[in-house]
Order: sequence, then structure tokens, then C-alpha cells
Amino acid sequence: MTYQPPVRDYVFLLRDVLQIEKYANLLAFADASMDVVEQILEEAGKFTAEVLAPLNGVGDKEGCAWSPDFSVKTPTGFKGAWDKMVEAGWPLLSADPDFGGQGLPRVVSLGYSEMSSAANMAFSMYPGLTHGAYAALRHGGSDEQKALYLPKMAACQWGGTMNLTEPHCGTDLGLLRTKAVPQADGSYRLSGQKIWISGGEQDLTENIIHLVIARIEGAPAGTKGISLFVVPKYLPDADGNPGERNSVNCLSLEEKMGIHGNSTCVISHEESKGWLVGEEGKGLALMFVMMNEARLGVGMQGLGQAEAAYQAAAEFAKERLQGRSLTGPKNPDGPADPIIVHPDVRRMLMTSRAIIEGGRAFMVWTALHGDLAAGAPDEATRQKGRDYMALMTPVLKGFLTDRGFQVCSDAMQVHGGSGFTEHFPVSQYLRDCRIALIYEGTNGIQALDLVGRKLPAEGGRAISTFFGELDGFISANAGDEGLKPFVDGLSTAKGQLQEATMWLMQNGMANPDNAGAASTDYLQLFGLTALAYMWAMMAQTANEKIAAGETDPIYANKLTVGRYYLDRVLPETAAHLAKLKTGSASMMALAADDF
Amino acid sequence: MTYQPPVRDYVFLLRDVLQIEKYANLLAFADASMDVVEQILEEAGKFTAEVLAPLNGVGDKEGCAWSPDFSVKTPTGFKGAWDKMVEAGWPLLSADPDFGGQGLPRVVSLGYSEMSSAANMAFSMYPGLTHGAYAALRHGGSDEQKALYLPKMAACQWGGTMNLTEPHCGTDLGLLRTKAVPQADGSYRLSGQKIWISGGEQDLTENIIHLVIARIEGAPAGTKGISLFVVPKYLPDADGNPGERNSVNCLSLEEKMGIHGNSTCVISHEESKGWLVGEEGKGLALMFVMMNEARLGVGMQGLGQAEAAYQAAAEFAKERLQGRSLTGPKNPDGPADPIIVHPDVRRMLMTSRAIIEGGRAFMVWTALHGDLAAGAPDEATRQKGRDYMALMTPVLKGFLTDRGFQVCSDAMQVHGGSGFTEHFPVSQYLRDCRIALIYEGTNGIQALDLVGRKLPAEGGRAISTFFGELDGFISANAGDEGLKPFVDGLSTAKGQLQEATMWLMQNGMANPDNAGAASTDYLQLFGLTALAYMWAMMAQTANEKIAAGETDPIYANKLTVGRYYLDRVLPETAAHLAKLKTGSASMMALAADDF
Repeated sequence: MTYQPPVRDYVFLLRDVLQIEKYANLLAFADASMDVVEQILEEAGKFTAEVLAPLNGVGDKEGCAWSPDFSVKTPTGFKGAWDKMVEAGWPLLSADPDFGGQGLPRVVSLGYSEMSSAANMAFSMYPGLTHGAYAALRHGGSDEQKALYLPKMAACQWGGTMNLTEPHCGTDLGLLRTKAVPQADGSYRLSGQKIWISGGEQDLTENIIHLVIARIEGAPAGTKGISLFVVPKYLPDADGNPGERNSVNCLSLEEKMGIHGNSTCVISHEESKGWLVGEEGKGLALMFVMMNEARLGVGMQGLGQAEAAYQAAAEFAKERLQGRSLTGPKNPDGPADPIIVHPDVRRMLMTSRAIIEGGRAFMVWTALHGDLAAGAPDEATRQKGRDYMALMTPVLKGFLTDRGFQVCSDAMQVHGGSGFTEHFPVSQYLRDCRIALIYEGTNGIQALDLVGRKLPAEGGRAISTFFGELDGFISANAGDEGLKPFVDGLSTAKGQLQEATMWLMQNGMANPDNAGAASTDYLQLFGLTALAYMWAMMAQTANEKIAAGETDPIYANKLTVGRYYLDRVLPETAAHLAKLKTGSASMMALAADDF
Repeated sequence: MTYQPPVRDYVFLLRDVLQIEKYANLLAFADASMDVVEQILEEAGKFTAEVLAPLNGVGDKEGCAWSPDFSVKTPTGFKGAWDKMVEAGWPLLSADPDFGGQGLPRVVSLGYSEMSSAANMAFSMYPGLTHGAYAALRHGGSDEQKALYLPKMAACQWGGTMNLTEPHCGTDLGLLRTKAVPQADGSYRLSGQKIWISGGEQDLTENIIHLVIARIEGAPAGTKGISLFVVPKYLPDADGNPGERNSVNCLSLEEKMGIHGNSTCVISHEESKGWLVGEEGKGLALMFVMMNEARLGVGMQGLGQAEAAYQAAAEFAKERLQGRSLTGPKNPDGPADPIIVHPDVRRMLMTSRAIIEGGRAFMVWTALHGDLAAGAPDEATRQKGRDYMALMTPVLKGFLTDRGFQVCSDAMQVHGGSGFTEHFPVSQYLRDCRIALIYEGTNGIQALDLVGRKLPAEGGRAISTFFGELDGFISANAGDEGLKPFVDGLSTAKGQLQEATMWLMQNGMANPDNAGAASTDYLQLFGLTALAYMWAMMAQTANEKIAAGETDPIYANKLTVGRYYLDRVLPETAAHLAKLKTGSASMMALAADDF
């Protein structure tokens, strides 16, 4: 089956729910009329479905190949697709016009981001990480560095990587050992080994720009001694073209469960030449600029893979004839009914829809706040945008990848035995998307970031604003009979999230293990509540459209899927609240030796 | 890390909780003193850890190889391990003494079954399916067939398979097309293609005995026309030794996500010679004898893989140094603390323990009822045993494989990025165990079997007996302060399960889709409640042992893990109840074309 890009759903979200044409006064939105946006989404759909999707299985089966000359060959077809992508300018959609970008709002480029992640996750990681590195350089680089690197990285003419992890340190980067020695010419020589570097070597771009965290000789131990460096594979010559080969090499590739089409490299810096980005000792903050970009991208991978897996499952469920409906044959002339007549098959497909459509709305709604943070005329709106981006990022990453993996697993289940074979695409979706729960900070780290940093930041300003927004929606729609189940469901979930937040404030300070013990359940509760809000907004829009005489079935279907969300997904909030309120006692009681 | 067989936990369950020595009056238990049982478990542990476990990764990497002469080569080392297994007599533990078995109760052989599934799931499937075929032949075969096949199949000198699925029919076997034509000599000639035949061809045994369902020429359509046949790869000669090669061939192997060490065959019957087993048209009932054996085995695979994955995760968590405890350094002299200090890592490990230890108790407790069904002196106990075996089988299969997969996924999560690489064993556990949710009836089919057949059977006799037993435990222990949280937790869960059962009775009849829509949540609620009972019994035992002065830490640890189960797992019951009570309306509302 061909991947079907969810263009219609994006149009619903952007035009009907978020009504982005309201923001035409913002610079980024000036050219983002819905006509233009729809056209972009249509073309993005064509490119991802026709160029990237057919290479997904190829990448899985072939993988990447390392050679003793340290080169890496990506799967057949990847280079051709890359060139088409660069030529069409897809990476430039929302890149900065100062560096050749089109400057469109993120809320618009997000559709392309989901579609490319859905069509070919392993491929989409190469431009994804390039843009993470682009964001860090744009944030912290000197004017000279920006001029040299950004136009080529924005366009994906050059690739970019994040060189963070070392064999003994992943989450705890304070332990890192890669060393940077200052040189007379103002550059540095870096020595050390980095692992799990996605796209660390490839044959897609004429140059690869590594952003590397390292410790300048003599710098303090721990995170305060970490600086960020830009280390190009080929040192740019006087004209800014790839020149002398730098001593940064890919020593080997990891064998992994999935994303075989993406090269996961051991990268060795053997006195590689690099330049400091930003200030000494401020590397971690810049790394988090990359990381936050990447976290949203990973949340999008969870969503994209879920959508692709759901589509395969729905297709299979409509075609596979097996058994009869419990309420009498639905395909009486055939040997059996399609399995979509069975409630338990529906359960899996409907849960997938409820998560995907709600999750997509959550992603788009957050991205709009990101656009407002960047370009709103008033500081209050910009501040709210920044607060929401910070607060929602760990939730989007953790919740959408956890649930995305579940959707992929359910899609395999719908396929029965076929799904476990490699003749069908769902094994790859399940294997590929599993990494999304781990990289760019495991989901446990996301949960800790949420309860430990994002909640208490600025005296809890972001979460208070969010609760205020939910209260406003609930009271504004209290009298709307057609929206009642949605308002009730949101109101219950919001009360539970508020109770959990209070519990954390009271118990997390007294014993930090209580906060750690509560973190994952809190993140799940947050995600479920956020989706309840999304579904309530979508239902409101659908009601209005139907009342106005619109007959497109998308509106009635939104009400049905939303109702299913209330019935069959949202009830989980109470369990998360009950669990987290039991605290850390039984979780921490066992002696380490007894595990 | 070497796999650590859970011998101590089996001794706790068999000796302390179930007190199997009470059953010495039963024939099967006469030789099953705890001394003997402990020795068997110790030896089983050694064999599985030293012989099977080291071949697990080998099997994954090498897989099985098919040759154009229709032969299949299993991974390096499998044949040697097989011969050791046969020589040691492991398959004979609880086989019928009439056919060379040792006749020990199943509750004893279960330990070996778990350990072999944990150490090498792909390997253990070959003897597992052989014993499924053995059970069907023992149940339905003629005396001559039994004498010819059973001693060799019991010992695993000959292999056995289940030839059920065809390309167009898996769950819905009524659609099958394989044809059997009666011959003048009383035999049949079978023609048709079977797929997904585990162990359908291999180089481990001197003969392979296929049990095949097929339709005798002229038999009615649907399930009533299905008969069972025994089709040996080599036709036994007059001395019962493998003779002439039969025309049953492996045409190819499936490429699968996991269990690479097990051959998954396309089997072609080209007028293969076979003999009817049991009566014409009664094939499906005999197939269910195999299937029910296999379902328990699959539940055990979920448990075994979970245990192996948990062990790898616990080991990793104690060794990997990363970050500091939220409550201050626990390894102040090291560069960081082991990650087991982090609550969210504990959450995953403790949840795994709660599921594994509770699930093992549930499995052993059910197996004891199986032994009582077979050998208790009074019909009431035998009937209860049969009722429980029937009722619990779908729950064990569905619940333990669902949760087992989650444990494997959590074990990967504990490993972080390492877990996604194939250098660590967890990717294999995750990939291997995923099939357990699918084969021998998907978990959705288990849930339907539970609500559609097992619950209503004999006017709900089995579930009523179970509720009566729970009520008895609750009231007998109502005054026990030390057991209060366990009794309270069980009581709440039991009330919810009872409410769900009532809801099903009232709403499932009116609209069968309500039963289908409720089935998976009902199965999960059932599993959670059963484990609450197991944890209450284990806690009661632990309390008694501690009061009697026993100092083995296993008793205190049981109370801790049990308490964690109540705090962090059991609260899910309410969500399942709430979901199922919403019925099928929103689940079934969307038009099939709108998926």
C-alpha cells in the first residue's frame, strides 16, 4: 500500500481549528495563506509518498555499509532522493530567510516533517539532525560561522550531526572525556571517541558539520566544563568550499534493531580541527538548543510511524477476510467478513486514530505557540509561547513516542501472523520507532525534565497559564450541550492533573524520590489531559462546521473518534493519578542487591 | 550475563505457597517430594543456563537455512543441545509413564518449561510443539497410533508439528482447503499448502510427525468438515523405524522479526500419506487439545522472556554508572551512581518483578489445578481443576504475553541506547517475545474465547467458583492486620471484575458487539485480579514465615514487591472497568471506508 499523506487532517487543524490566517499580521505568516499552505502540503505529500516511502523497506533490508577507508554507503536510492529533496528546497521551508530559508511558520513545515518521518524515518533523520545542528549554530555561532555554515546546512547541501554520547556517558554528559586543546590560530584540536552519532558519516552531502561537545584542557569537571565546537569533515577553504580532510573518522557502524537506513557511527576525533561555538563552558546550553529541536522531531517520529503503521493496519483490516461479524455477516457473498467488523480489531484501530489525530493536534498547537514565541508583536504572547514550548516539549516527546510504539504494536497485532513476517511493513515500523523512546533523552529523562525543571520554572508560570487556559475553555463552553461530554472529560482530567501537580509540589520537595517516582505517570497524565483539550477543541470546530451546513465527513468522524477517546483512552488518567500518589516508598524499598 | 534460573522462586511457590507435599496421595505427586523437586529444578536450571542460553544469540544471528532439497539446517549448536536434552530426558518429566514418561505433575515440569523458554525461546519451541502434537495424539489417537508415535514423541526423539494455518485462513479455520482423499488401504492422501509451521522441517530429529487438519473429499464446508491426520515425514516401517520418505515438503522459510532460530515453514502436502486421528469431522476438537497445550506454553514464553529481559536490565542497572541519586550520592567514590538509584529505573524493574513473580504464581497455581483435574480422587476437585484450566488458559496466554512484551520493552528502556543495539540481548528478547501475542490465537482471540466461551460455559460455573474462592480468602483474612492492604486490594479488584462480569451478562447478550468490545479490557482486568490474589497468597505465606522466624530475605522481598503491585499496577483495574462499560457504540460507529 502507498503511504497516504494526511493532508486533509492538516488543513482541518490549520484552517479550521487553529485558524492560522488570523496571524497574517506576523511576518512568518504573511505568505502563509491557506491556499499556499494547502499547496505546500499537497506537494510535501507527493514527495514523501512517491520519493521517500518506496525507499523505506530498501533501507531496512540493505542498511548502511562501512568501508575501511572510513566511508559509509547509504542504501540504494537514498542519494538520489536526497538530491531531489535539496533541489525541491524542502529543508528550507521554515529556515531563516537570512540563510536562504523561506521563513514560513513552523506550523506549516510541521506537515512535511511528519510526512517524511512517516514515509522513511531512517532517511528523515539525516536532514532532521542537520537542522538540529543548524539551530544550535544559528543560536550560538559567530556571524562568521553563521555565514559560512548556515546557508549550506539550511538547504541540506551539507549535513550536520550532534556528537554528544561517549561510551561511558549518555544521559550524564558531565562525565565526558573528549578533550579540546587550544591552538595558536584560535582553533582547537579535539581528541576522543563519540558513539551513536546518527548520520556521523554518509555519502549524501559534500560535507558533514559535526557539532561536538568536549572539555577544553584545564576546564572544570562536570557539566560546567563543557564547550561546543564545530568540526567539519572537510575544512572549508577560503571560498567556503570543502577543502582539506579533517581527522574525524567513522570507525564502525552499530548493528541496531531498526532504522537500518540511518548510519549510527562510532566517531573518532584524532586531533580533529574545530572551532569554539559560543562561550567556553556554555556548551551544554547550546547543546540543549539542538536537543530541544531534536526532541520535537522525535515526538514527530512517534506520530509519523504511528500514522504509517495505522494506515497499513487499516488497509489490512479492510481486505483480510476472516470470520463473521458477531452481529451477522457483513459480507454475505464472500467466504468471510473483513476483519474490520470485529470489535477488538476496531478497538486497536480506533485507539490508534484517537492517539494520532489528538497527538497531531497537540503537536501543531504547540508549534503555533513556538511561532508566536518567535514572532508575536506583544511580549505577553511571546512569553506564553516560550513557556508552552518549554513545558510541552518533554510531553510531546515522551507521550507521542510511548503511544506511537503502542500504535505500531497494535498495527502488528491487527495483521496477526503476517505482521511478524518481514513481508509486511509493520515489523519495520515497530523496530524503527522503538528508538524514539530512547534517543535525545529517554522518556524517563523527559519525565524528569517535566517534573524537575519545566513545572517549577518561574514559580510554575507555564503550568498555571495552561490550567488557566483550560479553565477558560471549560467555563466558556459549560453551557454547550453538544460539547458536554468533551467539556466533562476535559474537566475531570484537568482536575486530576491539578491534583497530581499539587501532590508533586507538596511531596516532591520533601523527598525528591517522590518526584522521580511520580514523573512518568505525571507525564502520561499530562499527555492524556492535553489530548482531551485537543479533542474538545476539534469537537467544537466540528460542531460549528456541521451546524454551518458543511457535509465533509471529516467533521462527523472527528466527533466519533473524539467520543472514542473519551470512552476508551481518557479513563486511564485516574490510574496514573492513583499510582503517583502512592509515592516512592514501595518503589525504592528493595535493596539493590536484591534485584 | 548468564541467565539465572529462578529455582528459589519455584521452591517458594511449590513448597511454601502451594505446599505440594499435601498432595502426596495423588499418583503423580507420590514421587514429588520437595527434595526431589528441588533437585530437578536445580538440574533444569543448569541445563537451560549452560546448554540452551549460550545458543540464544547464535540462533538469532544465524537463523535457519533452507536448501533446495527441502532440508532445513538449524543454527550451529542446536543439534548438539537437542541430543543432550533427549539424553537427559527433560521432555519426559511429566509425560505419561505408559509412553516412557516420568509421570511427574505438571506443576513440577513447569519450572523446566519456563527456564527453557527464557534461555532460548526459539529452541524451546521445537520440543514445545512436539508435546502439543503428543497431547493431541494421546487424546485422540488409536492404540496403534499411540504405541507407534507417542514414546518417540514424548522423548523428543521424533519431532511434532501442528499444520493448521493456510494462506487464506488463520483464525478462521473453517475456510481451510487442504484436501484428504481416502485410499483403499485405509490411509489418506493429503494435498494443500500450510504456512507458518513452526519446526515444520529441521535437522534435529530422525522423523517429524505432522498433525494436519484437512477436509476429507466430500466433507461439509466450515469447521464441521475438518478432520485431523497424522502425516509422518518418514513413513514408519514394520519395526516402527523411519522408512519411506513421504511427500510432505518445506518449500521455504519465513523471514521474521524474531525467533530466527526456529524454522517457520511453508509446508506443501503433495498427496502426502496420512492417517485419520480420531473421528471424521472432529478434527477441530482435537486441534484444540494441541492448541490449549500450546496456549499455556505461549503464556510461559511471555513469562520466560520477561524474566530473562528483567535479569539483563537489573544487571545493567546495577553496573551502569550515570548521574546521581536525587537524594544524594550513593556511590560517592565513583564518577556517578549506578542507575538503579533512579526512581524511574526502579519503576520499570519493580513493575517487571511484580508481573513476573505474580504471573509465575498464577501459572503454577493454574497448573496445580490441571494436575488435580487429572488425578484428584474426588470428582468435585477434578471438575474444579478442569473448570479453572479452561477459564484461566486464555487469561494466562493473553495477559502474560501482553505484559511480558511490556517487560521486555521496559528492559530495553533501562538499557537506554545500548538496548537498541544488537550487542545487548534485549533487542532479541523484545523481537522474539512479540510473536507470543499473536500465535496460537492472537490475544484478541484469547479475550473472545474468555468472554464468549469460558465465562458462559456451564452457566458460569467456573467464574462463580473462582469468585467464591476469592470471597472465601477475603473473609477468612479480613481480620489479619498484616495482610490488610493485600486483602483490600484484592477485594476492590474482585468487586470490579464482578461488576464487569455482570455488565457483560446484561449487555453482551443484547448486543454481541458489546462483548467483543469489552473482551480485551475484561481479560486485562481478570489478569490483574488473579495476580492480586496470587500476591495476597504469597504475602500471607511470607508473613507466616517471617513470624515463624525465617530470615531468608525472599520473604520480606515478597512483601515489598507485592506492596508495589498494589501501589503501582493494580490501580489499572478501574480504567479497564470504566472503558468496558462504555460499550461498543463509539468503537463501531465509524464506517469501514472511513478508516
